[in-house]
Amino acid sequence: MIETGNARFQAQLEFLLEMDKMKNIYRQTYVLHENRKENDAEHAWHLAMLALVLHEYANEPVDLKTVLATVLIHDVVEIDAGDTYAYDAAGNATKAVREQKAADRLFGLLPEEQGAYFRRLWEDFEAGSTPEARFAAALDRIQPLMLNYEKGGLSWREHGTKRSQAEGRMLPIRQGSAQIGALAEQIIRRAAEEGLLRNE
Amino acid sequence: MIETGNARFQAQLEFLLEMDKMKNIYRQTYVLHENRKENDAEHAWHLAMLALVLHEYANEPVDLKTVLATVLIHDVVEIDAGDTYAYDAAGNATKAVREQKAADRLFGLLPEEQGAYFRRLWEDFEAGSTPEARFAAALDRIQPLMLNYEKGGLSWREHGTKRSQAEGRMLPIRQGSAQIGALAEQIIRRAAEEGLLRNE
Repeated sequence: MIETGNARFQAQLEFLLEMDKMKNIYRQTYVLHENRKENDAEHAWHLAMLALVLHEYANEPVDLKTVLATVLIHDVVEIDAGDTYAYDAAGNATKAVREQKAADRLFGLLPEEQGAYFRRLWEDFEAGSTPEARFAAALDRIQPLMLNYEKGGLSWREHGTKRSQAEGRMLPIRQGSAQIGALAEQIIRRAAEEGLLRNE
Repeated sequence: MIETGNARFQAQLEFLLEMDKMKNIYRQTYVLHENRKENDAEHAWHLAMLALVLHEYANEPVDLKTVLATVLIHDVVEIDAGDTYAYDAAGNATKAVREQKAADRLFGLLPEEQGAYFRRLWEDFEAGSTPEARFAAALDRIQPLMLNYEKGGLSWREHGTKRSQAEGRMLPIRQGSAQIGALAEQIIRRAAEEGLLRNE
């Protein structure tokens, strides 16, 4: 980035350029219309679209701006910590420490009060400590479920995912939205019937 | 999508799955850390991040939620109408008609009041008729400028873009943000000095 001569603006611009790396962090979910996996930037955008369209189904009243900000930044720590697949036990054991360190560095690029605001949103998201965080978490779980089902269960079949694993992963959805939780159950039941998830 | 038995919810889910196509519409701008172009979903996410971080620089007070919704949906019509390169005169002549038709179909997938809300945001964006629309348009112009400059002007060099063309394209930024407008001028001046834009 060119030198603007304004330290605050410069820090903001450097953070925003660093964010470009989200476009190269690939998840386990496939996009629907190309033969490739979805990246974190696309995923976050899609969650924001879900938030815009589905916020009426939150269990508790939510501030939509806060939900949007949360889903937009919820995976930023993966720039340093990488994406940990939901069913990777070893990776998930070290995930918290790696992500805290990543949050220190990445949100630390911003002017202090902005970095603290994003950090708080991310911590709330991880802890599920606000209505907005719980609704954002519900969206974060239903979106890959919808895509996996539409894609013929490709990601589940690759990983040999069991129905019980998928069900466990979807449990938190009900904390954010009963309506979306019911949808998750319907999709899993159908996917299991169709042999896309393993019935053990 | 499975049948949920709820017409409103079903329409919303079908719209959200249709949105996946945004991940396959490629722009002329390159992402920074891979040798490929940016798609509309990534671009919209990046603009939303700019909005979160830079809204203090809007010329007029803006409602951040409205800015976020605007940038998230501003390119949705390209699912049917395609991306028209900024300096493609022939494509831009037919763009308006193609995009109106696309807006009819795409926003028409949603429950009526939601479709009307997004349609209004998009029309405002196109017309620059609100402070939020003008600020969103400023972000939509500075983001590819920042990326093109960071990428060594690759997209400009491919198209033989002239300094005067880039300057013309950046003029509307000042309507939304004087601060970001000044940044655009600085970047263009530097890019021209470095031979990334053609001085005619």
